Parts: sequence; structure tokens; C-alpha cells
Amino acid sequence: MRRRSVPIRDWGERGLIGWLRRQRQRVPFSPAYRLLKGIGDDAAIIAGRGSGKLLVSCDALVEGVHFDRQRASGADVGWKAGAVNISDIAAMGGRPLYLLVSVALPAGIERAWAQGFFRGLLAAARRYGAAVIGGDTVASPGPVFVDVAVIGECARPVMRDGARAGDALFVTGTLGDSAAGLISLQRRSGVRALERHHLRPQPQVEIGHLLAAKGIPTAMLDMSDGLSRDIRNLCDASRCGAQIQAGAIPISRSVRRFCARAGLDPLTLALHGGEDYRLLFAVSPRKVAVVTELEHCQRIGTLIEKGYYVQSEAGIEPFGEGAWSHFAAE
Amino acid sequence: MRRRSVPIRDWGERGLIGWLRRQRQRVPFSPAYRLLKGIGDDAAIIAGRGSGKLLVSCDALVEGVHFDRQRASGADVGWKAGAVNISDIAAMGGRPLYLLVSVALPAGIERAWAQGFFRGLLAAARRYGAAVIGGDTVASPGPVFVDVAVIGECARPVMRDGARAGDALFVTGTLGDSAAGLISLQRRSGVRALERHHLRPQPQVEIGHLLAAKGIPTAMLDMSDGLSRDIRNLCDASRCGAQIQAGAIPISRSVRRFCARAGLDPLTLALHGGEDYRLLFAVSPRKVAVVTELEHCQRIGTLIEKGYYVQSEAGIEPFGEGAWSHFAAE
Repeated sequence: MRRRSVPIRDWGERGLIGWLRRQRQRVPFSPAYRLLKGIGDDAAIIAGRGSGKLLVSCDALVEGVHFDRQRASGADVGWKAGAVNISDIAAMGGRPLYLLVSVALPAGIERAWAQGFFRGLLAAARRYGAAVIGGDTVASPGPVFVDVAVIGECARPVMRDGARAGDALFVTGTLGDSAAGLISLQRRSGVRALERHHLRPQPQVEIGHLLAAKGIPTAMLDMSDGLSRDIRNLCDASRCGAQIQAGAIPISRSVRRFCARAGLDPLTLALHGGEDYRLLFAVSPRKVAVVTELEHCQRIGTLIEKGYYVQSEAGIEPFGEGAWSHFAAE
Repeated sequence: MRRRSVPIRDWGERGLIGWLRRQRQRVPFSPAYRLLKGIGDDAAIIAGRGSGKLLVSCDALVEGVHFDRQRASGADVGWKAGAVNISDIAAMGGRPLYLLVSVALPAGIERAWAQGFFRGLLAAARRYGAAVIGGDTVASPGPVFVDVAVIGECARPVMRDGARAGDALFVTGTLGDSAAGLISLQRRSGVRALERHHLRPQPQVEIGHLLAAKGIPTAMLDMSDGLSRDIRNLCDASRCGAQIQAGAIPISRSVRRFCARAGLDPLTLALHGGEDYRLLFAVSPRKVAVVTELEHCQRIGTLIEKGYYVQSEAGIEPFGEGAWSHFAAE
């Protein structure tokens, strides 16, 4: 019998990760650095010194997929590579400490681009109190490829899987700004403030750390895929569903203004846009009052037993995923 | 004044790393995880729990630069990505614990290739007592990119910079096997045993750990660039030179036999070949006797004040670098 040939786009990232998680591994025995949580959250958790657990994660950016050298400078790409990784630490309620960076560069790329890249990365590290402590630079026969690994620490990391039906659902800021910024870049609309949201995301380390230190969230993640998909990521891990209020989703005035001019629906951008790097978190009913007093935290809905619904003036309807799949054929 | 445009191949990896090291960074304040050694060795060192320091490093492999899908299977590439990173931990005398992997795959690549890749990576991790605890899978519009970050632990890490003139220089095994294997693959000579050295390198974790635990090496590294370059890497860090004996360089019978048939010079392969992943280490004169008794450790020369010389039947002559530069134009 011949083996069926399956290109990876038909298998998908979820298929691959699911398969990978099913592979049996023996976890190494290290009395000092025991693994507390492996694959499946924003970062892995390793027991460490005193109450300070270690958080580790990595995220890659590829030219032509995640950025475009016509639209993003070296410094933009460096900042973003640092920021999206630091955001994974923020998602656990931790503080970033150290970054490692591997970068594959075409031999003909300008030195200025490479210097800009590292300056941007170092700027993101500095902004969030981290340092670049190692890396690898190699040649690329094709596009620029960047991978950053981050090490952070946290006394009380928050995972994705602790929420339950009845918990309130919050976000830590406006949504859709990054998607609007990307469209502005693509159409050369020149709305710099929005473009900056896309090119220079601001991971929410301070608020994430504050929430985790107070033991508030039952589950938390950083929003990279878009609200409709990120809610599923949190709910899949916590085995529940969600109902959100369309009117409660925070959308900035600049996004509304841009959408009005560009003939776009702001709610669609906020729901499916992605790359906002706000935190999405769940809170048990008895702690909701505490959160409502915190700046930037906006309640957008409630976790329910099953299914995904959005309530608007038109009534209650299920919502789908408008998210981006890495290996999708489209 | 116009800025001069400099493509990165004219700047080189050393130029880039030198520039990067000169960028000022504020090292984060973490009482639990203080940085002991940043950029510049095989791995960065972080103070940790009890006597167990943390070692962290990353290394990338790019299709068309570091491997070729015609010659290397997915499992070969996965093994090698894990092994070269584990080797960086071996170079410090540590034990690997955890791996993170980012991989960029073309959408049309076979699922079997991707599964093979992860199986190879997991096999390398398992062989050396480590586990894969996280990663990122993304699409690539071009070649396959792989980056692995490794976390290890070590009570007494050995750096590159502790050697001095008068120390003896040792390697932990034969050299040139990987280079001969690569030539066999390129010429389709089919010498599987040598090809395996190239495709499935074996990091020397056990011997590295033993040497470090006994406090034997004054400096150590893993040999990826070829002896002539790796000696310089060690000597540059330790501010000394080296004189080696051509006749003392360990070369396997299979390399000699292959070279005789293929019309190649075995010493050239051993000196400049690269990717053997043996350990190169220096030992102070009073500890030389201990090492000579250890299996696989072969003395190849002595560190001197300055310069690089090889002694053979023809006399003493300086030796150059035959190593591979990542951004070289050739």
C-alpha cells in the first residue's frame, strides 16, 4: 500500500501541534529545574529558585509572511520580534529577563538594515527591562528569518486552562488598531498612529504582572490571532464557551475614524484582526469588582458552558473564526 | 553626505557580533536569575538554584546553507538541529534539559517530512536526556528554517577564556569524519558510516560533563567550524596562540581509507573540515597526566604566547584558517 502524500497546508498548524503533543517524551530529571508545564500555553513553566518560576517561549517572524521589507524597517522588525516574545511572558503574568535571537539574512542585505534590526530588538528589550544575551546569525538564500527565544520569571504564572463557565471575560485595551494599521500600510493611507500599532506592538507586561500578582485571572493569554480565535484558544484550554457583547468591545476613535473613511467595519477588525497583543483574561464572579476599577480593563462578556455567541442590537448570534491559519492555502 | 551602502557579506558575522557586543545594554535586575556571562561563549550563563547554573543558547539551520533536502531526511535535520544545540551545552560542561524549536515550513512540504523532522529532534533530545517543551511553527515562502534554543544546567561551567600559554590542547575524538561524510554525500560515494557523522552528529555531553565536574579544562568549546578556526576561537578568547602536532591529530581509519580512494588529503579535512562536534579543551600542565588516562582524549598540541603553528615532518609552519564564513561571498 502506498503512503498517501499530504502537503502540510492540508494538515495545518493545529494538526501538527496536536501530533507533536501526542509524541511521548520522558521529562528530564532535574531537581533544581523541574518542568511544571510544557507545550500548550503561551510559555513553558520551569520550577526555579525560591518562588521565582522560569517562563520560556519562542516566536519566529518570516519575511513575506509576517513582515515586508518595503513597509517595515529593520528597527520595526527587530522591535516586533522582541515584543511578540515579551508578550508571551506578559500573557503568563511574568517579567521578561533575557532574549536569544537567531537571524538568517540574505548575503546582499544592507548592513544598515541589520543594524536597525538589532537596534529595534535592543530597544524593545530595554523598554521592558530585558537584555539580549545570545544568538546566532546565519546566511539565508531567501527571505529574512528571525526567531527569538525569551526567558522570564514569575511567582504566580497564569495559564490558559483555569477558567470556567460563569467567569467574566476582560481585555486590557482597544482591539483592531493593529489590523487597521496593516490596512493603512497596504493601501498607503499613511495613518501613522495606527501603523505604529502594527509595526511596534506594546506588550502589556505591567498590567499582566499586576493581575497575576493579585491572583485575579483564572486564565489569561496575549491576543495575537484576533479576538474570535483568541477566545477559542482560551476556551478550548479551559473547556468552556463564551458569550460576548458587541457593544462592549473597546474600539479606539482612530480605528472608527479610519474605518468610516476606508469603508470598513470596525467591529470586524476588532473581532478578527489579530496582532493587538492586548491581554484576554477570565475572572471569577467574586473578583469582578476589583478588575472593573483597574484602568484599561474592559469587560467584554462571560464564559458559558459551550458555544460562541455575540450579542448585539440585532440579537444573539454565533460567531465564527476569522483568524489567520499559518498553513492555510488562501 | 550620503551614507555608504554596505551589503552584509562585506561586514561579516564577526563584524556584526563585534558591533552587537559594543551596543550598551542594561542587564535586568533579577536577584534569583543574575546574568553571569552574556554574548561571546557557547552559551550564556545565568545564576540559578543552588549550585546549578543555567546555560542557554540557540543555533539555526537553513535549507540550502546548512542542509539540503535531497541529501538529508527530515529526521536527519531534526536530529542535527537538536544535536548542535545540545553540543553548545556540552561545550560548557553542562547537561541539556529543555529545547524550544521554531520551524518555518513551505506550505507544500510533505507532512511526512515535518513528522520526520520532529521525530529526529525528539530522538536527539531523548538520547541526551532533554525534552522539547515549546516552539513555534510558521509558514515559509522559501526554504525550511529551523531554530532551536536550549536550556541546560551545570555546577561548574567552563568558558573559552580561561586558558593560557603553556596549557596543553586536547580533542575528544577523531576529526574530519563529518567533512568526509559531506563529500561522500555530494559525490554520492555512499560511505554511510561517514555520512552519518555529517547527518547525525553526536554531541559529547558525557565527556564534557566529566571534564567540567573534575575541574580539568581551563577553556573548552565544541568544534563546529573546523580545527584551524576553532583553535582561533579558543585562543582569541584566551588571548594566546597555539602550536599543534600534525601527527597527533586523530584521524579515523575510515577517513584515511575514504581520502585515499577519493584523492583527498586527510589532514586537510581534519584541520579545516568542521562540524565534528568534538570538544576542544585546554589543560594546565599539572593536570595533563589525569587527562591522558581518559578515553578518547588526545593531546594535539600546546598553547603558546602568540601565533598558530603546525609541526610536521616538514618542520614548523604557520597555519591559516580554512573555515567557513557565514556571509562569505564565495
